[in-house]
Amino acid sequence: MKTETSSALHTDLYQLTMMQTYVNRGLQDKIAVFDMFFRKLPFGNGYAIYAGLEQIISHLTGLKFNEDDLKYLETLGFNSVFIDFLKDFRFSGDVYSMHEGEVIFPNEPVLTVEARIVEALLIETALLNIFNHETLIATKASRIKQVVVDKKLAEFGARRGHGLGASLYGARAAYIAGFDGTSLVEAGKQFAIPVVGTMSHAFVQSFENEISAFRAYAEENIGNIILLVDTYNTLKSGVPNAIKVAKELKKRNIPVDGIRLDSGDLAYLSKQARLMLDESGFPDIKIVASSDLDEYVISELEMQNAAIDIYAVGTRVITAYDQPSLGGVYKLVEVIEQNERIPKIKVSDNPEKNVLPGRKSLYRIINRKTKKAEADYLARYEEKLPQVGKDLLLFDPVTPSKKKIVKDYEAIELQHKVISGGERCYPSPDIKQIRSYRQKTLDLFWEEHKRKSNPQEYYVDLSLDLWQLKNKMIEEKRLEYNS
Amino acid sequence: MKTETSSALHTDLYQLTMMQTYVNRGLQDKIAVFDMFFRKLPFGNGYAIYAGLEQIISHLTGLKFNEDDLKYLETLGFNSVFIDFLKDFRFSGDVYSMHEGEVIFPNEPVLTVEARIVEALLIETALLNIFNHETLIATKASRIKQVVVDKKLAEFGARRGHGLGASLYGARAAYIAGFDGTSLVEAGKQFAIPVVGTMSHAFVQSFENEISAFRAYAEENIGNIILLVDTYNTLKSGVPNAIKVAKELKKRNIPVDGIRLDSGDLAYLSKQARLMLDESGFPDIKIVASSDLDEYVISELEMQNAAIDIYAVGTRVITAYDQPSLGGVYKLVEVIEQNERIPKIKVSDNPEKNVLPGRKSLYRIINRKTKKAEADYLARYEEKLPQVGKDLLLFDPVTPSKKKIVKDYEAIELQHKVISGGERCYPSPDIKQIRSYRQKTLDLFWEEHKRKSNPQEYYVDLSLDLWQLKNKMIEEKRLEYNS
Repeated sequence: MKTETSSALHTDLYQLTMMQTYVNRGLQDKIAVFDMFFRKLPFGNGYAIYAGLEQIISHLTGLKFNEDDLKYLETLGFNSVFIDFLKDFRFSGDVYSMHEGEVIFPNEPVLTVEARIVEALLIETALLNIFNHETLIATKASRIKQVVVDKKLAEFGARRGHGLGASLYGARAAYIAGFDGTSLVEAGKQFAIPVVGTMSHAFVQSFENEISAFRAYAEENIGNIILLVDTYNTLKSGVPNAIKVAKELKKRNIPVDGIRLDSGDLAYLSKQARLMLDESGFPDIKIVASSDLDEYVISELEMQNAAIDIYAVGTRVITAYDQPSLGGVYKLVEVIEQNERIPKIKVSDNPEKNVLPGRKSLYRIINRKTKKAEADYLARYEEKLPQVGKDLLLFDPVTPSKKKIVKDYEAIELQHKVISGGERCYPSPDIKQIRSYRQKTLDLFWEEHKRKSNPQEYYVDLSLDLWQLKNKMIEEKRLEYNS
Repeated sequence: MKTETSSALHTDLYQLTMMQTYVNRGLQDKIAVFDMFFRKLPFGNGYAIYAGLEQIISHLTGLKFNEDDLKYLETLGFNSVFIDFLKDFRFSGDVYSMHEGEVIFPNEPVLTVEARIVEALLIETALLNIFNHETLIATKASRIKQVVVDKKLAEFGARRGHGLGASLYGARAAYIAGFDGTSLVEAGKQFAIPVVGTMSHAFVQSFENEISAFRAYAEENIGNIILLVDTYNTLKSGVPNAIKVAKELKKRNIPVDGIRLDSGDLAYLSKQARLMLDESGFPDIKIVASSDLDEYVISELEMQNAAIDIYAVGTRVITAYDQPSLGGVYKLVEVIEQNERIPKIKVSDNPEKNVLPGRKSLYRIINRKTKKAEADYLARYEEKLPQVGKDLLLFDPVTPSKKKIVKDYEAIELQHKVISGGERCYPSPDIKQIRSYRQKTLDLFWEEHKRKSNPQEYYVDLSLDLWQLKNKMIEEKRLEYNS
């Protein structure tokens, strides 16, 4: 993946004013641990798909302030000691992350930063900005992919994304989550994603009539002849003209590859078009459909046996239309002082908003018999996981009376060190690997967690130690501040 | 504004396959006219605010294919004639556009491209991508600004935007539409937007206790001391500690500038905090509030006389949360052959989706007496507007029985030539000018068009000539294709 030149100033002003405060007070080298996670699944889905890691690594390993940046900060009133400090500033911390394409759940640390507090603060805005966007789109795309089992799925949303970058990285996120290709050429080039396309209404209109447009396009695009049939009238003009051209080309052994429907009732039109194509001897001409599709419409079309071979989804996937924000957060969980790890907690009146204190280890507990995931398991970093073979007690963090014991399990560690001392120490996976990782890891989950509506909740449980630490710290804070 | 290096490949694949078809057939020099517009106002608003023009001009005037782009296109199977054609390809057409910050309405051409058809097609994806995003955010921001009359409004959404670019350009769009500043430093640097900030929970937590954090921050940020008071308990800990620090600093004649509330009931907490601050002799300490704010919540808080001086809005503005897509389109309206302008139309079964044929002129009709906008008026490009002083007959394009006659009016032309023969021919306005243009132009409209809910529709009417042309062309197409 191409290294993006994102700016060190892609940060909120307060990160810099706080950094200046630490620097002026000589506190800049204090080590802090931050967890990045989200609290609530979007779209009523049962899981999310993690995307954005590659861009996060690029941002962190390329981070520096250039001359212009420093001059600008001077105009904002930052002092010269701090500006000097920023001159050679690099990210020099450690980052632990799940793999891109991982199936992730609320309240578990997707990514953990252990770094000087000034570094850890500076990067928050960009990390969340990337994570919140790409994970959101990948999760929406994964939902859509689940209703398109044996058919092809293309992402056609570039013109509706939130600017050029959103469309570019959105195309990548959709591909990771199971889409088969994108219409956006730049995404194809940068990320090695298959690119797909047909023709537009303007093309058809620019010719004297529809059939001239079809003939011209077919002649010049052999191997990828997909004709848009709804410019004038789908069944009375578009499909008959496509068939006429297909017959002409058949004499020269050139196949027409497909037609595209882009308006009207796609179930009815696709079935009629299929009939007409089949009756004319063209059972191999594929039908592509687009027009405000999402997982709900596609699912209905599939139930109605629409004769659609390729679904093209635009606005609804590229903007995550029904819930356009993930709400991921990045919270301080620990500071290290004189080599002592001091867990930190933020207490909220809403117990679901409490932050789990301390550096943690995260495991996915796989039942050896069923090969399915039972729960994710969060323990304190120092803790040893009970030996495999022994029983494991699982606790729900919010409702501790929800317990279960897992007997014959395997525990897969989910976080991996990706940056060590500011340097990348994690292979850059091929995008196809990331895409197949999502599929493989999603197969570990029972179908009930993957339902489009009202899925069964998958638990992220705590070790007894972690649960006790959390409760103790909440109790202390409550006593301190609530009378 | 800094020139962005956006890619020529930021386009849908079909634009390139269509271009190749024209080139191979020798049709590449045919001139086409495309209108960019949207069909439906977002958020139930009565108007939209146009944003994105500066980025569109940068994209068009910087457009070229580099070596890597061409190599990639070869791998996709594009032929060498076409690849050669792209080597020296530049955008060489003319572009007409409304001013950025303009108040715009459905179905009127915000921007019109007159260029070789191959150029006009290539740019569609990026133009819509930019327009749809920035106009959407500016429109949402303008709604929010309308409920914040005398107070300050800051954009704090960077971490929730759809990636780095969405947050960057979103901050700019929000500023154009009336926000007073952004937290995003890069946006401040690139676009000369005021940047604002406070402190985070992590900062407070990283100190032994809240008051040490406040003291340290205050000491190092004189002139911008805004203390976040909800880390532990707003009224029992945060506000009292802020007051304690304010008293300490008062002895040295240093003012604390503000406190920030970020959770809980903002109406109640702000009033209590105001009382506590006032009683302690600090009526000048401002109260900043954030926490999932939008135009609805702010409007309620204002009705309840919340003691908030500065509203900070994040997710809801930066993602246009309640409707994250504008749906702008770019449609062929004319081709020029042998110097003859041939209007084009796309007919839809849904009359609101018909495209207005031909190159058009667009006027805003201002009543000279009231100084208010009566309607926008679309005429054929060749038409002369009836002389000022005469009566003007206005037609609603969908329901022609809706007519009105305007007597004493002024007609302001809304489109301006911004690119001529591929070169920029339009001054680059200062961002403050764009921002004040929005305010000035919005003042031309009656309050009933600016209501948050159920605003009165503002009409975009047609000249008799244009209306007749449209109907004639629709009739012809209907006869041709619908038996």
